[in-house]
Amino acid sequence: MIVNETQLRVQYYETDQMGVVHHSNYIRYFETGRTELMRRIGLSYTDLENAGTVMPITNVEVRYFYPAYYDEIICVKSSIKEVPKARVSFHYEIYNEQGKLLADGKTTLAFVNKETGRPQRAPELMIQTLSEHLLKV
Amino acid sequence: MIVNETQLRVQYYETDQMGVVHHSNYIRYFETGRTELMRRIGLSYTDLENAGTVMPITNVEVRYFYPAYYDEIICVKSSIKEVPKARVSFHYEIYNEQGKLLADGKTTLAFVNKETGRPQRAPELMIQTLSEHLLKV
Amino acid sequence: MIVNETQLRVQYYETDQMGVVHHSNYIRYFETGRTELMRRIGLSYTDLENAGTVMPITNVEVRYFYPAYYDEIICVKSSIKEVPKARVSFHYEIYNEQGKLLADGKTTLAFVNKETGRPQRAPELMIQTLSEHLLKV
Amino acid sequence: MIVNETQLRVQYYETDQMGVVHHSNYIRYFETGRTELMRRIGLSYTDLENAGTVMPITNVEVRYFYPAYYDEIICVKSSIKEVPKARVSFHYEIYNEQGKLLADGKTTLAFVNKETGRPQRAPELMIQTLSEHLLKV
Repeated sequence: MIVNETQLRVQYYETDQMGVVHHSNYIRYFETGRTELMRRIGLSYTDLENAGTVMPITNVEVRYFYPAYYDEIICVKSSIKEVPKARVSFHYEIYNEQGKLLADGKTTLAFVNKETGRPQRAPELMIQTLSEHLLKV
Repeated sequence: MIVNETQLRVQYYETDQMGVVHHSNYIRYFETGRTELMRRIGLSYTDLENAGTVMPITNVEVRYFYPAYYDEIICVKSSIKEVPKARVSFHYEIYNEQGKLLADGKTTLAFVNKETGRPQRAPELMIQTLSEHLLKV
Repeated sequence: MIVNETQLRVQYYETDQMGVVHHSNYIRYFETGRTELMRRIGLSYTDLENAGTVMPITNVEVRYFYPAYYDEIICVKSSIKEVPKARVSFHYEIYNEQGKLLADGKTTLAFVNKETGRPQRAPELMIQTLSEHLLKV
Repeated sequence: MIVNETQLRVQYYETDQMGVVHHSNYIRYFETGRTELMRRIGLSYTDLENAGTVMPITNVEVRYFYPAYYDEIICVKSSIKEVPKARVSFHYEIYNEQGKLLADGKTTLAFVNKETGRPQRAPELMIQTLSEHLLKV
């Protein structure tokens, strides 16, 4: 399993009138988390796009346990467990500064050729890099 | 089953550089959809909040089949199948103008006392109104 | 002067923990307003983009007088006063249901060739359409 | 003049189909910038809110010179020049990694008593802290 932790500070514009972070923003925290996981192992999402592959989301699941509050530093723990084939899945846990689990979730992404708009397999570089890191750990 | 359809026009600020609606916005379309469903049967969310109950999200699931594009009119079909007890679930389908199913999903919401912050059962008015509508159909 | 009014319902995800619409969303309401003004006179922004012109924002000014609240229907009154040359300016006023002026503002947009990324003059179709409507009124 | 620089990474969800950061997000970058400036001199916005003062925006001005792109690290340079009375103004400049000025702007905020909803003068702690820092520099 490859794991990466990203610290984020909750912004005012992410709160709603319930006084907590609006639930839609967790999906955005997940996006930041998986981008940073990929960057850390040398898989820049920008490089993948430039090389012709975009990665649209096909599935999102979130479970919300406790609210996140304005100005807190939250930790997005992102992980990947398997070498992707036609799709790749990321898992997430979001913790507050006290280490309380606020939410967890999973997203699955497909691989699409940027020019043709057609589904493709995971790029070779991604398969190779993830394989190496998954074996290492 | 209570069903309601809401038409929304996709906004420029909802797109991303993939040229389609960013996936996090579907969660917001769901929110608009369930608010309009509740309004139509006389359950204004504002009234519920004013009466002391807030409804935080506990679960979100989305499956994405096809992208939504800028300026399209999409239809959010929201439905509710069961009288809520401790929680209430809404189901959603999002269609484009050609009637293609772009995404579907489900959200579950809890009931929380606004003053104490503690979970409560569904408000009596909500149970009664939903029961009547679920029997009728 | 060409004027268009667009009704919008304030969404929960647009509020913040101050209990009002977060100020950044007014910029998005302006965008919806000018898109609808342009659509009404036959200038679809999608058509302009497909014809090769994008319209990046160069200036935004907003003055906030009173807050907008969740679930209110607000009216975005958008107007255009002059035929564009290198740039085009839109003016906005946002009212609540009681007719109170909540905010006003102005945005200026440039014209950029989608392929080259270089500034250009306003597309001929836009100049012609706006000229006709500005003379008519 | 009190100046503070905040580094931010541009997120995918902040881009639009023009392939650049949507202009409304600069207002949000400004908010992050001024929050961090205030935090650095010991004026936590959360503390101000807890002490009973909220700070609604009354004016926003932005000039956009060059686009910001996905995954870039941008620098928000926030500054404050004068001790606030009834209102406080912040100035901003946003730079990319090459030191190019992408946008600048100004926001003005009022002080409102959280309980009564009525305008008030700047809190004494804020006046004092800002005075000290403005004299020092």
